[in-house]
Amino acid sequence: MFKQHPTATGPLAAFNTADAVEHLNRLDLAEAAHLVAQVPPARGVRLLEQPELTHAAQILQRLPPAQASALLDAMADDRAADLLLALETDKRERLIGALPATTQQALRGLMHYPAGSAGSLMTTEFVSVAADQRAGEVLQHVREVERDRETIYAIYVLDPKTRALQQVVTLRRLITADPDAPILDAAQTNPPVFVTPTTDQEEVARLIRRHDLLAIPVLDPQRQVVGIVTVDDVLDALIAESNEDVHRFGGVEALDRPYMQIGFLAMIRKRAGWLSVLFLGEMLTASAMQHYEDALSKALVLTLFIPLIMSSGGNSGGQATSLLIRSLALQEIRLRDWWRVVLRELPTGMTLGAILGLLGIARIATWQLAGFYDYGPHWMLIALTIGAALLGIVTFGSLAGSMLPFILQRLGFDPASASAPFVATLVDVSGLVIYFSIAAAILGGTLL
Amino acid sequence: MFKQHPTATGPLAAFNTADAVEHLNRLDLAEAAHLVAQVPPARGVRLLEQPELTHAAQILQRLPPAQASALLDAMADDRAADLLLALETDKRERLIGALPATTQQALRGLMHYPAGSAGSLMTTEFVSVAADQRAGEVLQHVREVERDRETIYAIYVLDPKTRALQQVVTLRRLITADPDAPILDAAQTNPPVFVTPTTDQEEVARLIRRHDLLAIPVLDPQRQVVGIVTVDDVLDALIAESNEDVHRFGGVEALDRPYMQIGFLAMIRKRAGWLSVLFLGEMLTASAMQHYEDALSKALVLTLFIPLIMSSGGNSGGQATSLLIRSLALQEIRLRDWWRVVLRELPTGMTLGAILGLLGIARIATWQLAGFYDYGPHWMLIALTIGAALLGIVTFGSLAGSMLPFILQRLGFDPASASAPFVATLVDVSGLVIYFSIAAAILGGTLL
Repeated sequence: MFKQHPTATGPLAAFNTADAVEHLNRLDLAEAAHLVAQVPPARGVRLLEQPELTHAAQILQRLPPAQASALLDAMADDRAADLLLALETDKRERLIGALPATTQQALRGLMHYPAGSAGSLMTTEFVSVAADQRAGEVLQHVREVERDRETIYAIYVLDPKTRALQQVVTLRRLITADPDAPILDAAQTNPPVFVTPTTDQEEVARLIRRHDLLAIPVLDPQRQVVGIVTVDDVLDALIAESNEDVHRFGGVEALDRPYMQIGFLAMIRKRAGWLSVLFLGEMLTASAMQHYEDALSKALVLTLFIPLIMSSGGNSGGQATSLLIRSLALQEIRLRDWWRVVLRELPTGMTLGAILGLLGIARIATWQLAGFYDYGPHWMLIALTIGAALLGIVTFGSLAGSMLPFILQRLGFDPASASAPFVATLVDVSGLVIYFSIAAAILGGTLL
Repeated sequence: MFKQHPTATGPLAAFNTADAVEHLNRLDLAEAAHLVAQVPPARGVRLLEQPELTHAAQILQRLPPAQASALLDAMADDRAADLLLALETDKRERLIGALPATTQQALRGLMHYPAGSAGSLMTTEFVSVAADQRAGEVLQHVREVERDRETIYAIYVLDPKTRALQQVVTLRRLITADPDAPILDAAQTNPPVFVTPTTDQEEVARLIRRHDLLAIPVLDPQRQVVGIVTVDDVLDALIAESNEDVHRFGGVEALDRPYMQIGFLAMIRKRAGWLSVLFLGEMLTASAMQHYEDALSKALVLTLFIPLIMSSGGNSGGQATSLLIRSLALQEIRLRDWWRVVLRELPTGMTLGAILGLLGIARIATWQLAGFYDYGPHWMLIALTIGAALLGIVTFGSLAGSMLPFILQRLGFDPASASAPFVATLVDVSGLVIYFSIAAAILGGTLL
């Protein structure tokens, strides 16, 4: 929100906005509401508009109804819609009902877009003018409406008849334009970049960044501007997305608030689900091991390397997954490029597998020859088994890890749902099968 | 970069800037330089300014020297400094030497800041005015210098004597201010938010986001403005940081360019290092297994659950690490809060461990009672061993995973260096020790 507000007075006057928010976050809800009720309205709006204020909706709900409505009306409407959505239906309806009709309409419009869409991020408080105006008239209009608009740094020029978006003029071009020239003379020459209400926030961020915008217009099918998404909302969305990506890659459901503010049970719920699913998947390793029990009892030495070999498959898979998740998210790579990725991961995985395989062989040879451990008369065959298994498993891990995000995207899931433990679990079971198959081939007739 | 440039003509005229960049990225360097040499200077500047142009420095270097100098001079100087830094010293010096003295000085100033610092992100092309001017005079000044400034949406008001930063005025306040009023009347009332040249880019992003700024001033010890960091540079830095975080969490060195554009050997280098280090660490599991070989030969059934138990420790550790990395990065949690995290992770880990432990016991009991597998007469004790080991290992994993980012930060490393495989490797070795110790305690006298 780019608005500025008059000098702060009242109980929080000593704090700047960000510090006041931190202070409010530390209080209980009744105390916080009590303080917010006493600050000047403009300050109250500014405080409630901060996404960092963790219980803004609950504070709003505890204010006297008239005051709550006044604040909602004055607030950026994208934020007002978010706050209302966080309330229970009856409380939400009571607050909306008390608002002026135009605000009610704008907020109800915003509230029906899905979370994470351009529609849910956008504000309807932008500046638009007809294309037949002169630059001087537009600047005068901007001055008059400045207080009520979230940003005035991009001005949307509409077709006078259809009200479809024709061009975008930045404030910097406007103030340097000849006041008597048509507004379109100050406009950009490229066709305006835009999104639709259902565009995902990651795509919105990508376009804003790609075209260095301060705001992007959201158009309906008739190319009329239904709202704009500003760069500050995109920053917040990016940070949230980045948290979500790291959390999900770590195998946790994304937290919706800071670590220390999550309740104990909510924390368990966010973690136990995936952990249990992975555990159930990993149970297949126990079944695989039972299957090879015969081989294990003949050559116990094979068990010694199971953790080493399995973790190498998981690690190489996790690497590949982390690379591809980001490339798909940034659209550096598309779904149809999957075979180009296979052609890269196959030689990469084989090279990495060969490096680890040689390290593994060196480990066994060193221990054997230095006398740290006796792997028996067939130690060279055992070393060869470990080396070949590492080559196979790291290659398989790299391929599986790189393809998993593609498969998820193809099935309609977010590719970033592919977490490191998810890949490791996939690779672990197949890794055991690869290991024991190679062992049977190399050690058959001697140890097995 | 907020600048706009006149209509594009020349060979790339059919493309908008972002598409032209994609086109150039697909060509070889000689072709790309040939095209850039032919576009109008303003377009050339705009193209070279795009961070998405992957070989901008190499293209610049292939242009005729006079043209390269002219483009560098006209370019946003933060970007010009980045491009020069990407060249070899002698080529860099030749290009800098051909620039006007003031540009040389500005660029040399920018080039000595470390990568990822505010100094390396900042531009010196901002608008500053003396505090004794009137609003109308300032607006006139802004109009005159607009073309040469990266942003004019924040105007820095300096003390007329010391040139120290006194206040910040936004363009929206300036255009609505009374032209005859002193400029300070239009200024913000809170003291300006600022950074120093050595502030880390993550902290710059945090402050810009926290205070909803379009640019943040970079001050020297005398509080003079040495540059500003704009929100678009922060967006780019955030995306790069977000990539880096996911890559590093996946155990890969961050890639400096898109997946498909990395050479084969560079890709191996980025992955083989960590993979080998993790492999060497994981070799300790082989040593631990050798240590417990006696127990293994007596109770082969214990080996069946090794992959299951180890992966559960690694998974719970990875969850905790991913949560704490982000909390530390966003400064929701400080180093000194480590014991509060211990107090959360201990009960959380125990609860999660108990859940998995019960699942593990249920698995063994089901297989035994349904006749899928015979764990022998002591199957209840075996089930108890697995349950207790899971409780212990998941608790240990959660604690170790949550503390690792703190330990890294305390040692002066980035907490985000703690990758999922790093945690898993740490937990794997200790997990085996926990498992066999519990087995010895429960099964001593029966199986062991």
